[in-house]
Amino acid sequence: MERLRKGAVQLTSSLPSLLISIPEGVLDLGWGHPSERLHPLAAMQRAVAHMFDTTRLDALQYGAFQGFGPLLDSLATYLSHEPAYNMPVEPESLFLTGGASQALDMACTLFTRAGDTVFVEEPTYYLARNIFADHHLRVVGVPTDEAGLRTDALEAMLNDGSLPKPVLLYTIPTFQNPTGSVLPADRRQALVALAQTYGFTVVADEVYHLLHYGPLPPPPMVSFDTSGSGTVISLGSFSKVLSPGLRLGWVQAHPRLIQRFAGAGMVVSGGGLNHFAAALVHSAIQQGLLTDNIATLRRTYGERVKVMDSALRARLPDDARFAVPGGGYFFWVTLDGLDTEAILPLANQMGVSYRPGQAFSDTNAFSNALRLSFALYEPPELEQAVERLAGAIMSYRANG
Amino acid sequence: MERLRKGAVQLTSSLPSLLISIPEGVLDLGWGHPSERLHPLAAMQRAVAHMFDTTRLDALQYGAFQGFGPLLDSLATYLSHEPAYNMPVEPESLFLTGGASQALDMACTLFTRAGDTVFVEEPTYYLARNIFADHHLRVVGVPTDEAGLRTDALEAMLNDGSLPKPVLLYTIPTFQNPTGSVLPADRRQALVALAQTYGFTVVADEVYHLLHYGPLPPPPMVSFDTSGSGTVISLGSFSKVLSPGLRLGWVQAHPRLIQRFAGAGMVVSGGGLNHFAAALVHSAIQQGLLTDNIATLRRTYGERVKVMDSALRARLPDDARFAVPGGGYFFWVTLDGLDTEAILPLANQMGVSYRPGQAFSDTNAFSNALRLSFALYEPPELEQAVERLAGAIMSYRANG
Repeated sequence: MERLRKGAVQLTSSLPSLLISIPEGVLDLGWGHPSERLHPLAAMQRAVAHMFDTTRLDALQYGAFQGFGPLLDSLATYLSHEPAYNMPVEPESLFLTGGASQALDMACTLFTRAGDTVFVEEPTYYLARNIFADHHLRVVGVPTDEAGLRTDALEAMLNDGSLPKPVLLYTIPTFQNPTGSVLPADRRQALVALAQTYGFTVVADEVYHLLHYGPLPPPPMVSFDTSGSGTVISLGSFSKVLSPGLRLGWVQAHPRLIQRFAGAGMVVSGGGLNHFAAALVHSAIQQGLLTDNIATLRRTYGERVKVMDSALRARLPDDARFAVPGGGYFFWVTLDGLDTEAILPLANQMGVSYRPGQAFSDTNAFSNALRLSFALYEPPELEQAVERLAGAIMSYRANG
Repeated sequence: MERLRKGAVQLTSSLPSLLISIPEGVLDLGWGHPSERLHPLAAMQRAVAHMFDTTRLDALQYGAFQGFGPLLDSLATYLSHEPAYNMPVEPESLFLTGGASQALDMACTLFTRAGDTVFVEEPTYYLARNIFADHHLRVVGVPTDEAGLRTDALEAMLNDGSLPKPVLLYTIPTFQNPTGSVLPADRRQALVALAQTYGFTVVADEVYHLLHYGPLPPPPMVSFDTSGSGTVISLGSFSKVLSPGLRLGWVQAHPRLIQRFAGAGMVVSGGGLNHFAAALVHSAIQQGLLTDNIATLRRTYGERVKVMDSALRARLPDDARFAVPGGGYFFWVTLDGLDTEAILPLANQMGVSYRPGQAFSDTNAFSNALRLSFALYEPPELEQAVERLAGAIMSYRANG
């Protein structure tokens, strides 16, 4: 996408700098990437200067296993004051990671073996499946409804002798990817109780937890973990609230589980993960940049949710159903009898793209759904993208 | 160690910033960490400024799967001009990692399953064993001599029906950790031929390859990989030649293997590993910092090798045997009938420490050896440390 390549470094080969790749002329609502103006460039430049001034050589040396101590402190303080946490967060319950995906990979290494079973939401974040595949895990879907994981269905599955027992359950409880749903507190409690009873670990991908634009979500999954030794691993990330390029995130869990992460072979050998980025983010927090940036993101994304809601209501056919997300990146739209994968080539031709529902499940249950991200574009482009999408749907139906 | 904590950020809890921890008053030659003045602080500050000026937002966005394209280019060019490589390096044969330990962990995820066997050198880098343990791998030692892995012994083991067949063989061919040995070209060739014949992958940990202080070592293991689809994975790292805190390294291998790394679940989900650090290192290379820093390191460590050699000859008892390393971080010293683990408490009391030989093997074969690193201290401290070590050995023998 030409607009995003502006100012990029001169390439001497064809290997790309960035992950994103969008055909010219297409507004691609498939990408969960922040738009250009949401990267806090000037503030990060100040944070780097502050980091070198205050920590001197520390950012360049091997880092502590659990992560850069000052960031464990400042992050714990930050989260303790965050209304959507509503719990005191101790530095001893945090471990710094190379982002949520790296943490999920690490959880698979440390807590599973090839052939084990992991339960996931149906639908779920499609790229998590690749991580489970790398670890040769069997993936079983658990039904969801508009409030997320159906814990009643989960309990029935756990009691079904014909199904394998899970070692892990992977959930995105808050502003789910792709549906945007929020798991209510009573279901969170029920899920953790089931984990304790049936002896599996809940890995809660909560990277959108801090991006709330309306009523506060319930506190993170880990706050419901009252077991003596820990049965919940909450994954957080600076990718969604600061900068994805930093590749920095955190695990929040019982100190027993944190020590397992901190004692992993690659950590003990190489030192704390993404130590330099951790020292940088500590400076960013100390300078108030994280607070400011999250405020900007909430205001910006909250505005885009309204724009998307209006545009979808105005443009899409009457059978389109969607809930307005209270946070995160995504609208999940279903349309009666429409195959969203089949219509994608036409949509691309008409200058718009999205992630079809099939991507988020191994079943064919969501073939009439599509996920739209509002992270990458400003309101006028979002309105234009929805207009093109509506055009593609109507044209497809007219000629189908 | 007080000297190393100078200028560190103010801590509000007891959680450490750094991995290193040395009791007051002890000169600890156990640590393979660069000393304070070898961290290129001012140059890294310039590199950060250059990075933000030239790449603008690119360092903050999700990175390309294989790694930041401009760094793949500049690193390939750098290595192609490095005399110790003696091979053209294509960007397509490189994948950027979060350091060599992270790359080794990833190789285990992608190329092994629980219960598989990995062959290692006897002795080997002790912290690699923890990574293999995380992946539930069986570790079998292969004998070495003063020239490294004995490929004749390896071949006999591969033909021994009572031994499990390896899926991976982990080797440190150049300036080995702990022995400092360099595998000759003919053995490298023989090793790759055995890997092709018996169908295992060679993972060559070559993080010391660029740190040569005398005659050039043979080119990296991957240059001997003439197979059509790749049977060698060479691990490189910026930790030893720039800054360990960056947590950045690379895999060099046949493009088929590179694409397996670039297609790993956690990469496809989170984007290129340590993208921000990669953009920073690209700027460092463009500004000549890597060239300058490696020259400084070679000069500095080469000088320390001479100091260590003289001090060990002058101070240690006559039965002490060691080879003068041509590169890397370590002297490997053996002493007749001495239990280096038993003597460690006394040595600590006398203000010196080291890694005892037992750490590098599951057998007891190296109980009379010890590893001394010269990376962390300047010459006067190295001389003092050797003097203390000699005192501890003599005192132990006198009272033993």
